[in-house]
Amino acid sequence: MSLIGLVHGPNLNLLGQREVDIYGTTTEADLIALVEKTAAAHGHEVEFMQSNHEGALVDWVHAARGRCHGIVINGGALSHYGWSLHDALATFEGPVVEVHLSNTGQRESWRHTSVLTPVANGTITGLGPHGYELAIEALARILHANS
Amino acid sequence: MSLIGLVHGPNLNLLGQREVDIYGTTTEADLIALVEKTAAAHGHEVEFMQSNHEGALVDWVHAARGRCHGIVINGGALSHYGWSLHDALATFEGPVVEVHLSNTGQRESWRHTSVLTPVANGTITGLGPHGYELAIEALARILHANS
Amino acid sequence: MSLIGLVHGPNLNLLGQREVDIYGTTTEADLIALVEKTAAAHGHEVEFMQSNHEGALVDWVHAARGRCHGIVINGGALSHYGWSLHDALATFEGPVVEVHLSNTGQRESWRHTSVLTPVANGTITGLGPHGYELAIEALARILHANS
Amino acid sequence: MSLIGLVHGPNLNLLGQREVDIYGTTTEADLIALVEKTAAAHGHEVEFMQSNHEGALVDWVHAARGRCHGIVINGGALSHYGWSLHDALATFEGPVVEVHLSNTGQRESWRHTSVLTPVANGTITGLGPHGYELAIEALARILHANS
Amino acid sequence: MSLIGLVHGPNLNLLGQREVDIYGTTTEADLIALVEKTAAAHGHEVEFMQSNHEGALVDWVHAARGRCHGIVINGGALSHYGWSLHDALATFEGPVVEVHLSNTGQRESWRHTSVLTPVANGTITGLGPHGYELAIEALARILHANS
Amino acid sequence: MSLIGLVHGPNLNLLGQREVDIYGTTTEADLIALVEKTAAAHGHEVEFMQSNHEGALVDWVHAARGRCHGIVINGGALSHYGWSLHDALATFEGPVVEVHLSNTGQRESWRHTSVLTPVANGTITGLGPHGYELAIEALARILHANS
Amino acid sequence: MSLIGLVHGPNLNLLGQREVDIYGTTTEADLIALVEKTAAAHGHEVEFMQSNHEGALVDWVHAARGRCHGIVINGGALSHYGWSLHDALATFEGPVVEVHLSNTGQRESWRHTSVLTPVANGTITGLGPHGYELAIEALARILHANS
Amino acid sequence: MSLIGLVHGPNLNLLGQREVDIYGTTTEADLIALVEKTAAAHGHEVEFMQSNHEGALVDWVHAARGRCHGIVINGGALSHYGWSLHDALATFEGPVVEVHLSNTGQRESWRHTSVLTPVANGTITGLGPHGYELAIEALARILHANS
Amino acid sequence: MSLIGLVHGPNLNLLGQREVDIYGTTTEADLIALVEKTAAAHGHEVEFMQSNHEGALVDWVHAARGRCHGIVINGGALSHYGWSLHDALATFEGPVVEVHLSNTGQRESWRHTSVLTPVANGTITGLGPHGYELAIEALARILHANS
Amino acid sequence: MSLIGLVHGPNLNLLGQREVDIYGTTTEADLIALVEKTAAAHGHEVEFMQSNHEGALVDWVHAARGRCHGIVINGGALSHYGWSLHDALATFEGPVVEVHLSNTGQRESWRHTSVLTPVANGTITGLGPHGYELAIEALARILHANS
Amino acid sequence: MSLIGLVHGPNLNLLGQREVDIYGTTTEADLIALVEKTAAAHGHEVEFMQSNHEGALVDWVHAARGRCHGIVINGGALSHYGWSLHDALATFEGPVVEVHLSNTGQRESWRHTSVLTPVANGTITGLGPHGYELAIEALARILHANS
Amino acid sequence: MSLIGLVHGPNLNLLGQREVDIYGTTTEADLIALVEKTAAAHGHEVEFMQSNHEGALVDWVHAARGRCHGIVINGGALSHYGWSLHDALATFEGPVVEVHLSNTGQRESWRHTSVLTPVANGTITGLGPHGYELAIEALARILHANS
Repeated sequence: MSLIGLVHGPNLNLLGQREVDIYGTTTEADLIALVEKTAAAHGHEVEFMQSNHEGALVDWVHAARGRCHGIVINGGALSHYGWSLHDALATFEGPVVEVHLSNTGQRESWRHTSVLTPVANGTITGLGPHGYELAIEALARILHANS
Repeated sequence: MSLIGLVHGPNLNLLGQREVDIYGTTTEADLIALVEKTAAAHGHEVEFMQSNHEGALVDWVHAARGRCHGIVINGGALSHYGWSLHDALATFEGPVVEVHLSNTGQRESWRHTSVLTPVANGTITGLGPHGYELAIEALARILHANS
Repeated sequence: MSLIGLVHGPNLNLLGQREVDIYGTTTEADLIALVEKTAAAHGHEVEFMQSNHEGALVDWVHAARGRCHGIVINGGALSHYGWSLHDALATFEGPVVEVHLSNTGQRESWRHTSVLTPVANGTITGLGPHGYELAIEALARILHANS
Repeated sequence: MSLIGLVHGPNLNLLGQREVDIYGTTTEADLIALVEKTAAAHGHEVEFMQSNHEGALVDWVHAARGRCHGIVINGGALSHYGWSLHDALATFEGPVVEVHLSNTGQRESWRHTSVLTPVANGTITGLGPHGYELAIEALARILHANS
Repeated sequence: MSLIGLVHGPNLNLLGQREVDIYGTTTEADLIALVEKTAAAHGHEVEFMQSNHEGALVDWVHAARGRCHGIVINGGALSHYGWSLHDALATFEGPVVEVHLSNTGQRESWRHTSVLTPVANGTITGLGPHGYELAIEALARILHANS
Repeated sequence: MSLIGLVHGPNLNLLGQREVDIYGTTTEADLIALVEKTAAAHGHEVEFMQSNHEGALVDWVHAARGRCHGIVINGGALSHYGWSLHDALATFEGPVVEVHLSNTGQRESWRHTSVLTPVANGTITGLGPHGYELAIEALARILHANS
Repeated sequence: MSLIGLVHGPNLNLLGQREVDIYGTTTEADLIALVEKTAAAHGHEVEFMQSNHEGALVDWVHAARGRCHGIVINGGALSHYGWSLHDALATFEGPVVEVHLSNTGQRESWRHTSVLTPVANGTITGLGPHGYELAIEALARILHANS
Repeated sequence: MSLIGLVHGPNLNLLGQREVDIYGTTTEADLIALVEKTAAAHGHEVEFMQSNHEGALVDWVHAARGRCHGIVINGGALSHYGWSLHDALATFEGPVVEVHLSNTGQRESWRHTSVLTPVANGTITGLGPHGYELAIEALARILHANS
Repeated sequence: MSLIGLVHGPNLNLLGQREVDIYGTTTEADLIALVEKTAAAHGHEVEFMQSNHEGALVDWVHAARGRCHGIVINGGALSHYGWSLHDALATFEGPVVEVHLSNTGQRESWRHTSVLTPVANGTITGLGPHGYELAIEALARILHANS
Repeated sequence: MSLIGLVHGPNLNLLGQREVDIYGTTTEADLIALVEKTAAAHGHEVEFMQSNHEGALVDWVHAARGRCHGIVINGGALSHYGWSLHDALATFEGPVVEVHLSNTGQRESWRHTSVLTPVANGTITGLGPHGYELAIEALARILHANS
Repeated sequence: MSLIGLVHGPNLNLLGQREVDIYGTTTEADLIALVEKTAAAHGHEVEFMQSNHEGALVDWVHAARGRCHGIVINGGALSHYGWSLHDALATFEGPVVEVHLSNTGQRESWRHTSVLTPVANGTITGLGPHGYELAIEALARILHANS
Repeated sequence: MSLIGLVHGPNLNLLGQREVDIYGTTTEADLIALVEKTAAAHGHEVEFMQSNHEGALVDWVHAARGRCHGIVINGGALSHYGWSLHDALATFEGPVVEVHLSNTGQRESWRHTSVLTPVANGTITGLGPHGYELAIEALARILHANS
């Protein structure tokens, strides 16, 4: 059994309450439950973390080193300018899967590239909550292959 | 009576103490008093918030949803790269007026555009402390029109 | 008592008759009345000028030197390429406040920057007709401070 | 019967007298006759207007609102920086067809895009005087379809 | 009597069946009939060719050399990156008129310029099926002038 | 039961035989088997198509309209310049999921953006063959939700 | 004896009265006298023209065709965006010398290039009023060589 | 004895018949003969391939793997956007020499860089048919060195 | 004796534990000891501060005003986008020396420029831990010169 | 009497022998004679220097400090990248006038701006050998005004 | 018999001694011998010149005018910014062939274009010492054709 | 004992005599004495070299190979375009430390990046003459570590 970190950047705590035309009605709590269920099916546990503070996300990644085996991250807006978070993830030894609910490539141009991509194994965008399930499955597969 | 949030981004707590040739000698306390007086004249109350932490500003905007009726914001340097704050303001249902003490269009090129503009009703720049009074008046007008 | 110039660039004579979803239903005459009333409350008079000719706007600014004490200007489309108007305003000794009815930062990219900003004291955008009232108040304040 | 405006921007009054290798020997008077004949064949009348002043072109478009049913315009050099003319045409309710005698896409790079294109129904370039006939036919077709 | 090539690039075979808000309900067969009728009125015949393969379009242009007297071409998406088609048209001795149903200058930025323009006599955009009639007329005029 | 199209662009027929450090040793046949098995688990059938010809891919997408219910596509190098394929996919009514074996965001800059993204529901990159399984699962989920 | 046109663009009528640190204290009248004297020394007459209207400058250039033998022009701000004036000068058969009082290459970046340069024989910048004398001498030399 | 592939991209089949001022009068058949003679002198055989279809060129490169020992390629216009051909050549184990008849660095800017260069050993441009002889000699030298 | 602030931005707390090929094996504690020793040799004391939170770094700089006499700062990734930190340092009256362990000019392009450079006296890059010693010596020299 | 330095950059020693369509038939010796005659008329002497070595030009400028009273320079190609020469001229206390025989603004884009302009009083381009006479006159005037 | 100049720019004197992974172990002396042998086979003589001084290279090219019949040049780093050398070669009447040992298109981006290409007949890159032999052969061919 | 090369690019011979507001009053001789003293304290000797000729600097670097053990270099303006010097330093086996007296990041944009940085171990900017002492100390430290 491995510990998977599920990390949420700024504003994702409001999921389901804001801009439902873009992000849908699923709440963050729904997402966590979904992710936990998917992880459990693979025998993994989930540690959830959300913060609107880039520093707190960096702190958490540091603390996760040696404790978590993999990370699924939706960096929110920080995905597009959070180079400190990028550097923190670069220090993490396990696999990292990046996920976005919406298809960021179809929105404002500043959302078209993610500074987290260079330090992630892979990225899943535009598939809504289901993308989180897939991210967990991808992570489970990589952890299984590495173990 | 409505509750208006007055939000100050990084370094604005030093107003009146730093770079007085650019920002003038009015202190942040002076500004708050000015804003409160202007708001009171329109029958509104002011909740002030300043932070050097983008995360804290995002947290505050979240907490202001449903409690504040409008926001006047000077994002300081975050106006130019704080996309998380942009996303937070996008979740706020009430009117937002952006204000800058100095004429940012006459300073370094990275200050020429604000990432908060796309989520603000309007912007007032270069008019010093008086710009805050005008911002409150603009907000009061919009709140009155919406009510 | 001071004389304030209210200057309107191209197409603003059609206000209230065109693209009302962007510019609203207030007519230019309504705006003039509003501005005159606001100026009168501060003891100032208003001289109004509108032209679709950049040259005529430049001529007017020249003639206003030594006669007007301040200018409120909405340059219309010329705000974005009218460098001759920019140079004319640079010769004007009194304060200049730039105003735009719509939030130009949310429209086509060529409207995102104004070539008049470098020669204006401050700018007010996106606040509709009320922005004109605020501009007059800002100008009155600066004139008062300078006197 | 409809009234069609034929609008010529700067320097087109010299047609046939200047740079004949680029613009050919047809004069402006020839073009007007050609356009009138084509329009008449569709039962339409033509009002011709030429000016080297952007402001005069804007004034004319304003006056044409409610009087002309469609416009064929060759903006000359203003096609490439005349945003005031762009804004004026945006206030015109009828169809607009843009025409250029030469193939602007094969000349200097600043002629490759037209700021009038976003407010025109369609554009015809590089077909010489015949392009004007085609523009009238296109306009007649649209007017017919709309009537 | 001349033989005119009517060339359609990728996806134009679906005209009338897809994205009717952009391209209208006219089918490719309708367009061919329209073009043939217009050409016949000028005493010309039409050879139609459509392919989703750039190579096939290039092959056709090669085969048309010496057989067709002029070409009307709507390159579809290839208009924006098909440099091989550009080079093929450059080898064609007769006149080439480019046509686009929609106003490409009002759509995505990658559609704003056409790599075929440098090798076309002229271009007609945004005038729907009627633009094809006009293109044939333009071609007929040029063929007549050259003969 | 639905029919899912699995589409492979140029050079993917060589999978497992070339550049194994980037693409791994899984062959295209392996991938098809994997996809068919995953699809079958959701009660769906797979129609596989590979071509090094953009035109053939466009032809196939056209033929898939009304027959296939969804598409999983790895466009290979065409993902980065195949605007004709983009236009073809835009005519497809069902869901489209884009997949890349490698993390294209970590390779040459011309691979960093995909012209297929604007017409795909979502994208999965960097997760190797497993990404195909996830893409099928995502498609199955969307088809189920739409049905 | 030849007739030389001396053309002044926007705001140059204020010379000596505005921004004397940049443009010096010489007035426009002083400049005209200086130019007339220099021209007279070469046996030439001067026709002076100043306007803040680009259209009026274009009109004047048209009227100067066949009457003036050469032009010395300081386009003011229009030097940097006045493509209509550029096109007008392109129709003038005689020599054109461009002059700027200040060293435009040391000022704001938008003043670094002149759209009039491509249609001028030569350019003289940064040499103050003396630059006008030199421009006349240059023109006289060219006229003499051509005669 | 080795087998050398000589690959020609779009429009090169028209060599000697089109734009002889750029490409000269040598025909493709002449070039093949020249190349075969040069190769024979080094004891090598040549397999020639020309296509206007990028897909066919990719197919051919795939088929050449394990059969040809080296490739001389003139990609025509595809040299500048044919990333699929780039990826195909990247799978080829033997040496690749790129050749262009004209000096592409002196023509339109889109011809200044070749997307095939990153997967070629070397490039020879501007030397006309003789460049093909040199390319074969270079390839023969590399093959000899590798053997 | 002066008090020198040693400020570390995000992820520097992991020094010696992460990416040792780039940053070496010296830990943050080693660095502090080294700096303290160097400072002591000049009669100065060191106050160390590290945070992964830009806001906390800004807060610290504010608190250091009037208490610290100089600052040595390695902003980590914030060096490249931390404009709030830039603004905070601009309010600091004493000298600031920027230091980077690695040669940032040889790494990813986003690390090539530092937004802290405009508010630093000087910068030392690429010299590893020794760079910190040199930074302290530089600061001591400036403090001595200013005192 | 003052000593004026006349400085010629690379390739100007070949004047009159190369590219006479661009540079004319006047030789460098002719130019020197012309300049000496013009200078003598103002009571000045000329020291001529030409080098194809940027370093030699820099050396000369250093040696000219305190000896020459002004410089007329045609930097040749170094005008466009010779920053060392720029720095050398910045150390020269007297006036500097830049001259170019051809109208550099009408030639290749890399010749459109000169790195010497920021350290010159003024620039004269496109007027051929006569431009040198004018440059000497301009220098003489400035020297006279300064004396 | 013709005299061919072989010109080497900066740092090429160190060939075989530096960066052998990029440039190989062939020394400059080896290259000269190779070139002389190849030239001799065509009945030509070689004059070799190497300098680390751009000025010396320019001087040599000047001296070679009328004496050398053709030039083979490897400009080293000057190939990418040596506009003076570019201008010198433009004055040379005979053919010029540019050669680079390494495939500059696969190295740092500043090496991707050569400022010498616009003044060379052709270019040979990436073929090591053999590229020099080919360059001589190309030159011999051109000289033979011209004679 | 090691031999350290101290290399000065163009114009640095004038230190203390020019632009003292930027570079200070320390002369080059002062700097040499300072550097020699610092080096002596570490048991090293200094060989000084200054030239305004890039070629001479390249020659010197070549000659220093195998004789000098390290280099401290201030390339002056060549730091920003001297790619030949860059290539020369790349052939030097020992450590290289780049130094600038002024904070180049606060001056003209062309001074913001140095082409020597990619071939230097580290860089010290903005610390005046003291920066040279630090550079020697850094070099001594690296030499000591390598020995």
